[in-house]
Amino acid sequence: MDLKSYLEEKRRLVDSYLKGYFKTPFQPERLHSAMTYSLFAGGKRIRPILALMSYECLGGDPLKILPQASSLELIHTYSLIHDDLPAMDNDDLRRGMPTNHKVFGEAMAILAGDGLLTEAFHMLTINHGGLSTNALLNAIKDIAMRAGLSGMVAGQAQDILSEDSEPDPEALEFIHSNKTGALITASLRLGPILAESDENLLSLFTGYGERLGMVFQIVDDILDLTGSPEEMGKPSRSDEKKKKLTYPRVYGIEKSRELAGRLVEEAVELISRIGPSSEPLKEMALYLLKRSA
Amino acid sequence: MDLKSYLEEKRRLVDSYLKGYFKTPFQPERLHSAMTYSLFAGGKRIRPILALMSYECLGGDPLKILPQASSLELIHTYSLIHDDLPAMDNDDLRRGMPTNHKVFGEAMAILAGDGLLTEAFHMLTINHGGLSTNALLNAIKDIAMRAGLSGMVAGQAQDILSEDSEPDPEALEFIHSNKTGALITASLRLGPILAESDENLLSLFTGYGERLGMVFQIVDDILDLTGSPEEMGKPSRSDEKKKKLTYPRVYGIEKSRELAGRLVEEAVELISRIGPSSEPLKEMALYLLKRSA
Repeated sequence: MDLKSYLEEKRRLVDSYLKGYFKTPFQPERLHSAMTYSLFAGGKRIRPILALMSYECLGGDPLKILPQASSLELIHTYSLIHDDLPAMDNDDLRRGMPTNHKVFGEAMAILAGDGLLTEAFHMLTINHGGLSTNALLNAIKDIAMRAGLSGMVAGQAQDILSEDSEPDPEALEFIHSNKTGALITASLRLGPILAESDENLLSLFTGYGERLGMVFQIVDDILDLTGSPEEMGKPSRSDEKKKKLTYPRVYGIEKSRELAGRLVEEAVELISRIGPSSEPLKEMALYLLKRSA
Repeated sequence: MDLKSYLEEKRRLVDSYLKGYFKTPFQPERLHSAMTYSLFAGGKRIRPILALMSYECLGGDPLKILPQASSLELIHTYSLIHDDLPAMDNDDLRRGMPTNHKVFGEAMAILAGDGLLTEAFHMLTINHGGLSTNALLNAIKDIAMRAGLSGMVAGQAQDILSEDSEPDPEALEFIHSNKTGALITASLRLGPILAESDENLLSLFTGYGERLGMVFQIVDDILDLTGSPEEMGKPSRSDEKKKKLTYPRVYGIEKSRELAGRLVEEAVELISRIGPSSEPLKEMALYLLKRSA
């Protein structure tokens, strides 16, 4: 299969849904501008795409869950805006562009994040495709947990608390499985939750998602060390400067690459059990790994 | 009726639900501490209480909607933590105690707010009392809209944008109907939405809630000018120092009191149409007004 055009087609679906959703400015327009500035700053829509893939893998029509899948991008974008704030990671550039607070000021950046997070939950309630209300409630619960205290917010808090601390494999594992991994896992679980799959199927997607999330973060950590500022859209070695706990810092680059390879193998094995329809998800895992080689 | 003991009984229900919910610390404990510091800082639980009252007014058992009602306090608390940040209102004291970022630092305060907001939506999905899944989804949608872009976040953004600007009745109306009014209105709508009341009934609660929200804000504005720092738990005349758009600033204190009185009359008239069960809500409106006299 041609993974690139497959991903491109899904990315367009998500982009056009988000563009339509935020087309009409609301009051105050400055808040609308701040939110859309970051939402349309060239994100690859990985999380919504993974959600659409997980639903399609189970025989569902991706168009039916477009609002739910797209809500993940709102949550991801809010987390980037808040992470970049001076009190947090204090980053001036993101994807080669000035970060939100650099353009709109800190107050508006905080509110743009709050607005995106809140609107994500509104978007999750939109029922385009005759989804069961019970499935929708389960999706909202799962995403709220994994984006929040059993996931992303907890991981980000530990990340901040661990700055300047000694390399510690346990803290590293907690930070990355929660900060990045939890929302990736939630994306992969969205399909089976909305398709009301049984526990067995759900656990395959969960296992695949957890491993993919780890690989995602390991590759990001490696690229921060080896990529050029042009490729990264921000200064390289920024993790190092902030003394962040990263995989290469704890295990070295070679060991980190090996770990990523092993996790991709496991992820591919798990998702293959679903059958031929899991082909795109298999390809996706292999594709992510190649980024770091 | 004895409104005070009625309110006290409801407040205890909410407090004991919230205490139980956050009893066990999660990782990282510092995040748990930051969240619970503000959540248990002596809030009067007005929004959850109004939600319980609206459900009870329609013959429902308040215990059935305790998670949904309590979620409103998480949203209210997150908004206070973010509003107090240096980049926003830059307040050092709230209810006589140091604000969240003064105790836990800015990064943890931002994340405590993000965690409370996200957890509110998890709490909203908890179904203690056989509520219909459709009603729960409608409640989540209504709260997400009124706490977000069609309400609180939009109002707060306009408030920040209007600082130092000339007194403008239109901007004042937008700020306060959204910043304070929208979540109060959402609280009053929660009962009829979860009880699956018809549009007529819902509109009575909406009208009552909108007016109550305005009164709430007008009284707060007046108390900021006339109350002592001990009564307020923060320095008085802080709105004036920040050149906030307030009712007394636009209309003067006397006119503001008159407006509050008229709004309470209207609110009482609307809610009375429901019949004798609306007595506590009538009393509540009159009680709020008395605070400013």
